[in-house]
This record gives sequence, structure tokens and C-alpha cells, in this order.
Amino acid sequence: MIEIRLISETKFKRVRAANIDKYTKLQILADMCRANAIATVKRAGSGHLGSSFSSLDVVTYLYFAEMNIAELGVSHPDRDIYFSSKGHDVPGHYAVLHAMGLIPEEKFVNLRRHGGTHGHPDTTVNGIEANSGSLGMGISKAKGMAWAKHATDAGGRVMVMTGDGELQEGQIWESLQTTVHQKVNNLIVIVDYNKFQSDKALKHIIDLGDLESKFTIFGWHVERCDGHDFAALEQVFAEFKGITDKPKVLIADTIKGKGISFMEGPVEWPNEDYLYKWHAGAPDDDSFESGYRELTEKINSRLQSVGLEALASEIIETRERNRVKLKDTAEKVVSAYGEALVELGSQREDLIVMDADLSADCGLRGFENAYPQRFIETGIAEQDMVSTAGGLALQGLLPVVNSFGVFLASRANEQIYNNATEKTKIIYVCHYAGLIPAGPGKSHQSVRDISLFGALPNCTVLEPANAIETKAALKWCVDEAAQSCMMRLVISPSPRRIELPEDYKLTFGRGTVLADGQDAVLFAYGPVMLNEALKAAETLGQQNLSLKVINQPWLNHIDETWFEQQIADFGTVFVLDNHSQYGGLGDQVLNTAQKVDRLRSKRFIKFGLDEFPACGTPPEVLAYHQLDGDSLASRIVNAMS
Amino acid sequence: MIEIRLISETKFKRVRAANIDKYTKLQILADMCRANAIATVKRAGSGHLGSSFSSLDVVTYLYFAEMNIAELGVSHPDRDIYFSSKGHDVPGHYAVLHAMGLIPEEKFVNLRRHGGTHGHPDTTVNGIEANSGSLGMGISKAKGMAWAKHATDAGGRVMVMTGDGELQEGQIWESLQTTVHQKVNNLIVIVDYNKFQSDKALKHIIDLGDLESKFTIFGWHVERCDGHDFAALEQVFAEFKGITDKPKVLIADTIKGKGISFMEGPVEWPNEDYLYKWHAGAPDDDSFESGYRELTEKINSRLQSVGLEALASEIIETRERNRVKLKDTAEKVVSAYGEALVELGSQREDLIVMDADLSADCGLRGFENAYPQRFIETGIAEQDMVSTAGGLALQGLLPVVNSFGVFLASRANEQIYNNATEKTKIIYVCHYAGLIPAGPGKSHQSVRDISLFGALPNCTVLEPANAIETKAALKWCVDEAAQSCMMRLVISPSPRRIELPEDYKLTFGRGTVLADGQDAVLFAYGPVMLNEALKAAETLGQQNLSLKVINQPWLNHIDETWFEQQIADFGTVFVLDNHSQYGGLGDQVLNTAQKVDRLRSKRFIKFGLDEFPACGTPPEVLAYHQLDGDSLASRIVNAMS
Repeated sequence: MIEIRLISETKFKRVRAANIDKYTKLQILADMCRANAIATVKRAGSGHLGSSFSSLDVVTYLYFAEMNIAELGVSHPDRDIYFSSKGHDVPGHYAVLHAMGLIPEEKFVNLRRHGGTHGHPDTTVNGIEANSGSLGMGISKAKGMAWAKHATDAGGRVMVMTGDGELQEGQIWESLQTTVHQKVNNLIVIVDYNKFQSDKALKHIIDLGDLESKFTIFGWHVERCDGHDFAALEQVFAEFKGITDKPKVLIADTIKGKGISFMEGPVEWPNEDYLYKWHAGAPDDDSFESGYRELTEKINSRLQSVGLEALASEIIETRERNRVKLKDTAEKVVSAYGEALVELGSQREDLIVMDADLSADCGLRGFENAYPQRFIETGIAEQDMVSTAGGLALQGLLPVVNSFGVFLASRANEQIYNNATEKTKIIYVCHYAGLIPAGPGKSHQSVRDISLFGALPNCTVLEPANAIETKAALKWCVDEAAQSCMMRLVISPSPRRIELPEDYKLTFGRGTVLADGQDAVLFAYGPVMLNEALKAAETLGQQNLSLKVINQPWLNHIDETWFEQQIADFGTVFVLDNHSQYGGLGDQVLNTAQKVDRLRSKRFIKFGLDEFPACGTPPEVLAYHQLDGDSLASRIVNAMS
Repeated sequence: MIEIRLISETKFKRVRAANIDKYTKLQILADMCRANAIATVKRAGSGHLGSSFSSLDVVTYLYFAEMNIAELGVSHPDRDIYFSSKGHDVPGHYAVLHAMGLIPEEKFVNLRRHGGTHGHPDTTVNGIEANSGSLGMGISKAKGMAWAKHATDAGGRVMVMTGDGELQEGQIWESLQTTVHQKVNNLIVIVDYNKFQSDKALKHIIDLGDLESKFTIFGWHVERCDGHDFAALEQVFAEFKGITDKPKVLIADTIKGKGISFMEGPVEWPNEDYLYKWHAGAPDDDSFESGYRELTEKINSRLQSVGLEALASEIIETRERNRVKLKDTAEKVVSAYGEALVELGSQREDLIVMDADLSADCGLRGFENAYPQRFIETGIAEQDMVSTAGGLALQGLLPVVNSFGVFLASRANEQIYNNATEKTKIIYVCHYAGLIPAGPGKSHQSVRDISLFGALPNCTVLEPANAIETKAALKWCVDEAAQSCMMRLVISPSPRRIELPEDYKLTFGRGTVLADGQDAVLFAYGPVMLNEALKAAETLGQQNLSLKVINQPWLNHIDETWFEQQIADFGTVFVLDNHSQYGGLGDQVLNTAQKVDRLRSKRFIKFGLDEFPACGTPPEVLAYHQLDGDSLASRIVNAMS
């Protein structure tokens, strides 16, 4: 059995109150927070430890030694404000807030659970000052806060942490220019300079060059120090107090995964094949146990050295070792996509694959390694990636542009529009489409992407249901589509393999009947929602109601003849979107029905999101939004009666 | 009468062939292009002369003395590529392309006319290599082209012109970093450093600081010279040929409006009150005549000095002097908005107005001058503006964020989403909403903004019909709305004053009947489309058909009871969107009807855009899209029969 343990706030209080060397105290507190962070990530099954650990000494220093929050609380207008712009280091941040007594234990231990703490910062969590998780916005937002403090004569400083890879985002440089010009000087930026991105070195992805000079030439007061050296941090923040005519930045040299030896990233990137392993995801059981042991021993050794008693922690969960995870056995459409890319790459020399530092997540590594000369890494610069794709397409190449849908469709929206007006062909792949996985929260769940592409008059939007359809869909986009395409891909393992008929063939505008039925008909798409649709059919079957389930991968084009055949026998038509109810397949169905006289009087009922996507486990979140099979079955029964 | 004259391509040929001093020749050619540019802008009634003239000497130099296009043509894979990232200097660029024989006279003289040349660059015009007009994308796109040239072993250089204000856009800095890292060295950026933005000095809007050092520290080879000195330009481009290990940038010091004395911007900004007048818009008759005369005299004097015969130009249009323009007499909703802002500013100390260098166009100048301490200028950095608004709102202030809808809703989409997830209240004002004016073309016409806000679950979207409703709508957003709002505002003068009933009161979710009718009902909104709707009603009235016209300013919320009352008597309901058919009021109507049993079987017909918005005069473009009153009347009759 694996034991997951928590260090309670009481223990932190005791250390904080102890009369010991202040730097040793901070070291102990930081490692205690590390222990709690890894415990919550292990419990959640996901989370970002690498950069939680690289930034944790700075965050510990700020809360326990620098900010006035301990005295004023987190609602006082004169409080110092701190937040993380990158946001994925929030497990470490929560650990500090819990240690400060700001997040109750019950909430803290439920990282990425519904009702617990969000996978990325959310202001509903006490002590969290801003929502983040999509990169590059933090300095701008901090500037707004600092501007407001000035306008309302409020005291306190505003401090914001950025990643280093995050500095590839253009908004960072906008905000560096405007902050200086607007004389918003009550602002401190801390760069967590751990030199690694998702898995490769920053120098390899997009090198930032001479960062100190860049900030300086942009008009900022720059300091640099070891981000794990509390005395150095203290000195920098003391110096900052004297600088009132400029905004300030601290480049904190840190080590990704700092605190657990085998998680620590190298200072120099060892070789081309080296991949940093601990950016995201929970550690396996053995790594968790040995990492936790290492932290505990370090903490205890320090406690002992200053004459304090050893750490006591409480077991919050025990679980079986080596639980089989869905992701190890299930089909993943993204893997099929990656295979198809390599295959098509061998046939089409004009195929160029583009990435914004999510190569592994987006299934691109195979292509990246097979055709490095046709793989373009742009780093975390989605706008640049998309316009570069535009230039490639104008010169006759076929770019396949990848990122998470929530970033690509949104951050680069105007660039996508601009490309579309040139009527070249580009394939956009919106990964991590839809509600699930819901652990990372609404900065990552892509439930607006169809609507963000929707008003482009020359882009086909589609989402495949399984590996076979994924390969067929990509091939269709590459070889057959006359115009640009946007393909949505679910990132998580498929909860079940969606079975297509033996004679399956992808046909433009037409879907596939997955389950026949006479009582009601439900359109859905993608492995996540088709699974829930089929579950609903199974549930209804037990009530002697038969639900016809149709996989419709074409989200903005429905073949009218086929559509009429499919729904002719039904008075009510249900549509399930893995997306906001606005602008998805449901609206496409409504509009298609308006074109056919006989269909107009039917009743159409849309299932989808009508609020921000909740954070939690898949079952929690599907149930919360009433989009799980059981809820769908009830909603269908209710609607029919 | 005013005479508008054109210098034909033949005249350019003669000068190009003349055996005279090469720099004098370029000066003459550039001024001849200036003369043609001002003629086409005068004829079009709009266009950007200030930056056409500041960049024209560089563009003239490139086409007539530097690029290989004259030999290879504009389709050869080995050609040098040039395009303008800012794009609003396209009247000058067209003049050069016309002078090169690439654009036929008939097309060239029809600037901003349907079938003529687009208001911003469009690749359908011969010689135009990329679409632009929304800022900041050009270096990325040029990089894609240069990457493709390398990948396909094609010869030729890639050169892109940026504005200086454009360097406030974050994407510029993304692309500066990635270009160097990706070693795309076959790329030359030319900054048209004219030091003025829409009407104020760049130093005043958002200062760029030491531009040379910025580019240098970003890893670029930097040269700087007088952008009106052909010998200096020649030297720089010769030097660039020797630099093969870095991308290159030329900071060209230029004068906005160069070539016509009274249009020339000062080198230093004279005083706070100084506003540069010639950024956009056609010159009045007197300015046009005296400016044209000055150019002609200069050209002739130079021609004479090198022994060539004086210029002969052809009259392409004569028109009456001082034609009364609609904009001088008509109601403008944006003016009402500006007045309401000032009024509400006096009542609400928490109201902060934000601008991205469009203060005059967005009606903000009154507020800017009345409450400078609550006006935040962010320059051309929409993402920074929106996230800064987020920070202000988190600290309890109420930001009113302004830009053109096509930029704001799209460029800052992810930032708007991020703010929305914090559930603070922010008012976004999407100016220049809809299809009209259509002269600037699709980079400026905002016909996707409703869809880009649509999937936000907590934002009310509305568009007022006239000055009264505009003031009421803003007041509602400021004082009554519980959540964020997006208000669309048409920028052009209202083609007619939309009359509201005497007892008019803005009521959430409910619109106003503007014309009663029994035969059909049409929902529309905003002054542009309501005018067409009323025209359609008038046309139908002559055919003894009565059309009920309803102004529905609430675009994503319709009061069901009111709605049912309004349409109960009609079998067919028409909806007219000043937007893509996707995601606008039409879809909202469809969805509302689905909620009410009795309404479901009615027929709903949407009018709106189903392609990219065309460029041209309002009547041309409305007719092209079949959205003018007459077309609407016919479409309604057809649908009813």
C-alpha cells in the first residue's frame, strides 16, 4: 500500500514560531511545503511538480518573510499582492497558503477535485489573487492591480511570478513596454528561471538570449540571484524597496524540481536526447515514496540541527500500489494522430508540423524525430506560430499547427482569421478539446474553440471518435479538404474504444450510427461524449427505451439528406456537445433543420456547457454538468415525458 | 469642380527608362507615386496618406532599385518578396505596383471600391504577397515565407515593412525571438519610424525607448538611416547582402506625410495639444488641390532639372467642390457614447477608460481630456490592455475597454476569457462593429465579434440603434449590469436617425417595434442594418406587404414572453445580423424559439454574412451581400411565396 501523508498547519505554526536561524527556518518550511505539494499531486494523479519546486523557495520567502499578509490578511486593501502568472506551479503555492492557514486542510488535500482546489489558480480559493494557467498575462494583470493601488491610495506592493518559457509569449513584451511608459513602478516581476520547458531546455525550444539586458533595455530595474538562496532573496527585495522610479524584475536562477534529487533538472541541458521528466503528472508510486522520504529526511535533519522535534504527519489516504491506470491500456486518439502524421509525412514532402512547446502532449514527437527538418518549434508563442504557418502556406507548403485548443483558437484567433482571408490551406489541430480531463481547470479545458472558429467561412471543423477515425480525418484534411480545417482532439485516453462498423468510411458531412434505437436520437462526437451517450443508451435500454446514438464528427457541416434520414422517425432530437452550448454541433443541427421544411417542427434539445467548465475528476465534472450517461438518460426521459 | 488626375503607367515607364541620375529618378518616381496615391485616396474618400507617404520612398527604392521583381515578375519562386505588415500604407504600395505595371489602371483608380483594390492589402491584388491591416503579424508571416524559400531551395529575399507604433504589439517580440532562434536569416524588416501613431506621438502613446538596442539585444543585425535618402537606403541594403548569419532590420527614420509640406509630421512632438491630422481619411478639397499642386510642381521641377518634359496626367474624375458628406450632418452613435462616458465619469469615480491608440475613432477624447487620471492609454497592445483591465477589476475598479471589435474580440480573446473566469465586471466596447464602412476591408470589418464573445457564460452582448439608446445602453452596462458587457458600436455616421417611441425605455432582453406590419416580421439591430430593414419595409409597403421591423439590441438574451408576443402572428420570422450568420442574433432567435413549444414550428430565416466581408462603398457592399433594403425586400418576398 501507498501512504499519502499531510503535514498539518499546526506543524507549520510550530516551526514558524520557533526561535531558530531564519534561513534554516525558511528552508524547513519550503521543504515541508514541497512534501505537502507532492502529496496533493500524488493524490490528485496530476499536477506540475517541476515548476512548483523551482519556484517554491521564492514563494516561501515571500509569504513567510517578505509580504505583509501575515499581519493584514488577504482582504486588506493595503496588503502585498502576489500571484503566479504561469499558474501551473499552484500546488506549491497552495501548500504555502495552507501552511499560512489560508486554505483549510479539507480543501487543500483535494487538489483538482470538485469542491477542492483548482488545477490552476482560481480566485475562489482564499489567498489566490488572480486566475492564471494560460501564459503571458500576469505582468499586465499585476500592472492593473498596481495601477489601482495607486489610484485608490492603497498600500502594498504587487508581485508576480512568471515562468521563463512564458517569456516567449508576446504579451509579456507588450506589458514590459507599457508598464515602464505608464510609470507603474510599484510592481515586482520574478522570473522563475529554471531553464526548462515542458521537457526540453529553454535554450533548445526558443532561446531567450541575454535576459538581463533585455529587461534592462526595456526600462526595468533588474536584479538576479539564486532563487533558492533566502539570504540573497532577502537582499534583492531590500534593494527593491529603494527603487521607486522603475518597475523591478528579479531573475531568480532556479532548478526545476528542486528539493528531490532525482527530479532536479540539470543546469545545462546534457544532450539532444535528454527529456526532463517531471514537468507535469503525478510521480509513480516508487518515485513518490522515495521522493517523499528524501524530503522528510532533509526536513528532519534540519529540524534536528536546530533542536526541534522530528516531523509528524498524518496519513490522508492509503491506496494499493501500482494501480492500473486507464492511460496505460486505453486507446488515445492523439497517439493515432501522431502515427498518421508520420505516415502522411512520408507521402507529402510539403507537410510541415508546427508546435508551441507541447510536442509530447500533442503526439508530435514521432514526426519531430522522423522529420526534424519539417518540424518547426515556436515555443510558447502561438500567435507567431500561426502567422508563420500563414507565410508557409502562402509559399505553397501545408502547415499542421498544433497546440491546446484553448490556447490556439483563442490566443491566435486574429492570426487564424488573417490566414483564412488569404484562402490558403492550413490544418489547425486543437488538442485537449472539451471538458475532460477536468483537473487542470478552465484555463486548459477547451470548450469555446468551435465557436472561435465558427464564423470563418472557409474552415471545416471536425472531431474524430476513435483511432481509426482520427487517421481517416487527418488524411481527409491533408489530401482531400479544399480549404483549411480545424480538427479537435481529446487528449485523455478514451474511456472506451468507440466501435465503428466494418464498412466504416469517413464521408464529408455524414456521421455513423453507433447504436440503433426507436425512441429517441442523440448526436454526439469524440470519444468522451460518445462514451457518455452510449452509457445513456445502455441505461435507457434497461428502462426499455431505445436510444439511437449517432457519431457526427463534422461539426460545422451536416449533409442534409443523410440528416433527414437519420431523424425522420423522431419527434425530438438530442445533441450532445463536448463544448459550450453556444456555437457547437447543437447550433449546427438547429440551423440544418431550418433548411429542410419537414424537419422544422421537430424539437431539438441541446446538451452542453452553459457555464465555465468545472474542475475535478472526469466523473465528478461530467456529473456536475449533468453530462454523464446517467444524467443524460434522465434528461432524455424527462424531455420525452 | 475638383479634378482628380492619374499619372499613367506609360509616364512611369518613360521616367524609368530615362538616362538620368538614379537618385533623382527615384525621387521623381516616388513623388509621382505620391500624386497617384493621394488621387486614389481622394477618389475613395478614405485611406491612410500619412504612413503611405512616410514609407513610400523605401517602397519606391525596393521596387525600382533593389528587388528582382522587374526581371522575374511576381510569380517566380525566386522573386524577392516585399509586403507591408501594417498594411494601411497600401495606397502608396498600390501606386508603386501600378507604376511597375502590375495593377491595371482601372483597378488601381478604384481604391476601396468593390472590384477595385482593397482598403488593406489583399493577395487577390496582383503583386500583394500577404493580407495585412491588423498589426503585428508581418514578421512572423515573412519568417514563414523565408523558411519556405529555404525549404524549397528558392532564391530571393523576404522583406517586410512594419510601422513603429506596431512594435507595441506583442507578436512582434515573439517573432523577433523565434526568427533568431530558428535561424531564419533571409529576412529583412524595415521599420517605418515616423514617430507618430493615429494622431499623437509614439513617445506619448507608448514610448519604444532605445529601439536599436532592443533589436540588437534580440539578436538582430540593425542598421538605421534616413528613410527618404535613396543613397543611404542603397548602402544599407548592400550591407545587408553581406550579413548572412542574422536576420536584419533597418530602422528607417521617416517623416509622416512626407512629400506634401503641410502633411509632414514634426520630428519632435511640438506640444501636448498637437494632433497629427493626416493619418487617415481623404483630404478636403482645398488640401487635396494644394497638396497635389505641390507634388506636381516638385516633380516638374525635378524633371526639368534633368532635362525631361513636364508631367502630363489624365483627369479620371471631376466632382463638385465641397460635397456635403453624411458624416458632417448625421448622428453618430460613437459621439453619443463619448458624451455618455464623460457624464458617467463624473458620477462614477471607479470608471476607468482604456484605449489602444484609437481614442478619437472610439469617441474617447472627451473622457481622455476630462479625466486624464482615469484614462489609460496602452498603445497598440490589446492583450496588455485587456489583462490590465482584469487587474483593475480585481481591485474593484470598473474598466471600459475600447478598440475596434475585430481587434479587441479576436486579438485579446484569451485575455477576455481569463478575465471572465474571475467574474469581475468589465465593459468591452467593440467599435467599428459590422460590415460598414466597408472601405478598409476585412481586416477592419468586425463580423465575428458576437461569436467570439458568445461562449462566455457571463457576458451580456448588446448593440444600440441610435444616440439615445447608446447612452441608455452604456448607463445600463455601468450602473445596472451585474456581469461583464460587450457593447458593439457602429463607427460610421448613421444613414438615418432611428426613431424610438416617445415612451422608449431600455429593458433587458426586450427590443422595440420600429414599424408595425402584418405580413412578416424582421428583427435587426444597430443603425446600419435597421436602416436597411426599414428600407425593406418601405419597399415592401409599395407592394402592399407590411413588414414589422423590430430593433432588438440584446444580442445574446431575448425575453421569451416578449418574443412570443412579437412573433405570435407570423409563420415566418426573419432576422438580420450585421455579423456573420454564425453566432449572431439569428442563432439566438433560433435557440429562444426552441424553448417555447408554440414557437418551434415557425420558420426562421437568417440574413447575415456567409463569406468574408467585401470591400467597397456601403451601397456596393450591402448589395453584394444582398443585405441592402431592396435585396432584403426581394428575399423576404421570395421566402414568403
